[in-house]
Amino acid sequence: MRSVSIVGIGQSPVGELWNRSARQIAADAITAAMAEANIETAGALYLGNMLSGSLLDQEHLATLVADYCGLTGIEAAKIEAACGSGAAALRIGMMAVASGFHDVVIVGGLEKMTDTVGKDTTAGLATAADADYEALHGVSFVGLNALLMQRYMYEYDVPIDAFAGFSINAHRNGVNNPNAMFREAVTLEDYLKAPVIATPINILDSSPVCDGAAAVILVPTEHVQHYTTGHHRGAVRILASAAATDTLAVHARRDPLWLEAAYASSQKAYRQAGVTVADIDLFEVHDAFTIMSALSLEASGFARRGEGWRMAHADVIGLEGTLPISTMGGLKSRGHPVGATGVYQIVEVVQQLTGTAGANQIKKAHIGMAQNIGGSGATILTHILGA
Amino acid sequence: MRSVSIVGIGQSPVGELWNRSARQIAADAITAAMAEANIETAGALYLGNMLSGSLLDQEHLATLVADYCGLTGIEAAKIEAACGSGAAALRIGMMAVASGFHDVVIVGGLEKMTDTVGKDTTAGLATAADADYEALHGVSFVGLNALLMQRYMYEYDVPIDAFAGFSINAHRNGVNNPNAMFREAVTLEDYLKAPVIATPINILDSSPVCDGAAAVILVPTEHVQHYTTGHHRGAVRILASAAATDTLAVHARRDPLWLEAAYASSQKAYRQAGVTVADIDLFEVHDAFTIMSALSLEASGFARRGEGWRMAHADVIGLEGTLPISTMGGLKSRGHPVGATGVYQIVEVVQQLTGTAGANQIKKAHIGMAQNIGGSGATILTHILGA
Repeated sequence: MRSVSIVGIGQSPVGELWNRSARQIAADAITAAMAEANIETAGALYLGNMLSGSLLDQEHLATLVADYCGLTGIEAAKIEAACGSGAAALRIGMMAVASGFHDVVIVGGLEKMTDTVGKDTTAGLATAADADYEALHGVSFVGLNALLMQRYMYEYDVPIDAFAGFSINAHRNGVNNPNAMFREAVTLEDYLKAPVIATPINILDSSPVCDGAAAVILVPTEHVQHYTTGHHRGAVRILASAAATDTLAVHARRDPLWLEAAYASSQKAYRQAGVTVADIDLFEVHDAFTIMSALSLEASGFARRGEGWRMAHADVIGLEGTLPISTMGGLKSRGHPVGATGVYQIVEVVQQLTGTAGANQIKKAHIGMAQNIGGSGATILTHILGA
Repeated sequence: MRSVSIVGIGQSPVGELWNRSARQIAADAITAAMAEANIETAGALYLGNMLSGSLLDQEHLATLVADYCGLTGIEAAKIEAACGSGAAALRIGMMAVASGFHDVVIVGGLEKMTDTVGKDTTAGLATAADADYEALHGVSFVGLNALLMQRYMYEYDVPIDAFAGFSINAHRNGVNNPNAMFREAVTLEDYLKAPVIATPINILDSSPVCDGAAAVILVPTEHVQHYTTGHHRGAVRILASAAATDTLAVHARRDPLWLEAAYASSQKAYRQAGVTVADIDLFEVHDAFTIMSALSLEASGFARRGEGWRMAHADVIGLEGTLPISTMGGLKSRGHPVGATGVYQIVEVVQQLTGTAGANQIKKAHIGMAQNIGGSGATILTHILGA
């Protein structure tokens, strides 16, 4: 099996991109990544996307995007694993290169969730849940997360403001990310006054509905020197790639406050990379909701059960903390174009590891981790990258 | 790169399965394939599906199906490439085994297109076309194929009954396939009297809207002996796997009557397998419409341009002909549950190569080919299997 490296990254700004169609947003990210790697074509495009069928009346999306990017003829497939689609596409791109099927692969993530005339985005997002046993009863995706947060507060006797630090940290980091959707800092006072969406989740606990695309170029590590000459950004190696799943429905889990798939995929990733949690210099966490940050930190081994919320302070998760998270704003502030998020996380880890994260650059950045979550924890992929 | 073999196959009957939910249909095929390979779990499930978001309000489908099959925890991802989704999933499963990421992979294909309350299946199928430049104008998927057929008849001066032989052959072979949707033979007279759907396409040119699922178990060829002991069906090796794309919109192609992606993927496949067209003993063709059979045979090198229709006779494509096609009924008679079709084709090639095709067993079956087409030829995958 060949080792795989990333030699180019690209991203579109995240936001309500009403003047750009889905294919244009994808092309913005892909052509930027291709320019950075100095390539004119590739063997394949694997495109993470969740909602194009439901919201855009467009399937066959990867071939469409390849065609629009001037790559007509190359292999193309869309990869779907709800909000974990981006990292699932990365993992499949990695297999294509590791196996020798391809020497150059483009992995993209794309979602267009706004300006979708006549479509219901909230209903679209609920397709990540079990249609027959969860969505049927009218529970929305934010509703499922609200139940988890409520249970967490009850079970561990945690006050509502315990979660504020995750939101404050993400917004603080988003200020300096030119591609972030929300570039305003928020305070504890803002958090406590924020409108509630689904008790106890308020608007500052939640990532936004938005549009965006990100892309990376994968090559065998042994070919890296062909791509990085003369370019400012060095290559980054994928040290570990692991995927695990859980029951789709939250009610079917023995313990809904334990993300078994985060535990399984992170443990596999640590073993593959030959590292422990202490070696992780930064962690791009899947902070779709603040409760998910707490649960992910616990199941990934950074905090004990019921104590993930205690990490929500600047001296721990801030850029100068012991474990910086959401360093470019995370899903909360950079935004959460669902099928693209997993690829944005990888792009941001690459920025940190190559010293190109601008004002948000952390000092020690040798090993970075990204965790991408589909549904309420049913599909979880963990990747570890090394400079 | 490890060689990859198939050690188990499974399929559900194809039809309007109103008493089975999508997950049940998938489980029928997957558990049958697992029983045949005598396995209790696997490293991953890659599931080809096109329309679950549009028609079932269910994404995150692969994790849902893994969970329902008792495989909670394993890696899972849905693969989408319109009607080419099944073969795209097979190809990704093959990469996962070839690379060493997994030692046992389940590849499934699943589609539920009927009994979808309040949904428009015709609109769903049109999501395979370009939403902004084709579907926007109101053209349906059958409409696009009708334009191709009309052009073919004009360009090559071919009468309407030239295509009948494809339909007659498929229906004749479907009679003996217990999983086929239509098990009645048809005659030239039936064809000429068949109701027209979109001129010149009639109902006997067209594959049906239906439900179904199929599955195969992939392992490294070097492990085959662990799985086949005591089982009636031998293993089959995947000799070649190739994918290619074209413009999504038909009008953007230089020559709409030439399936460039079929040409590219079949040529790649012949090279990989070290064979020529003369070595292919049977060909599971993507006969979604009779015009697609003619175009596929031409671009894959079995007929000259404009002469694919001349093959539509029993002495050529029949079970005792020089190139048997659609040997278990094809998309036309077995049925075309779109995202599952590519896996059904592989299952049927395995049946022929292992001498388990029953009444439809062809005599010489050493090398079989399957071609799965997404959209109007925009994504085409060609696989070659050997006994």
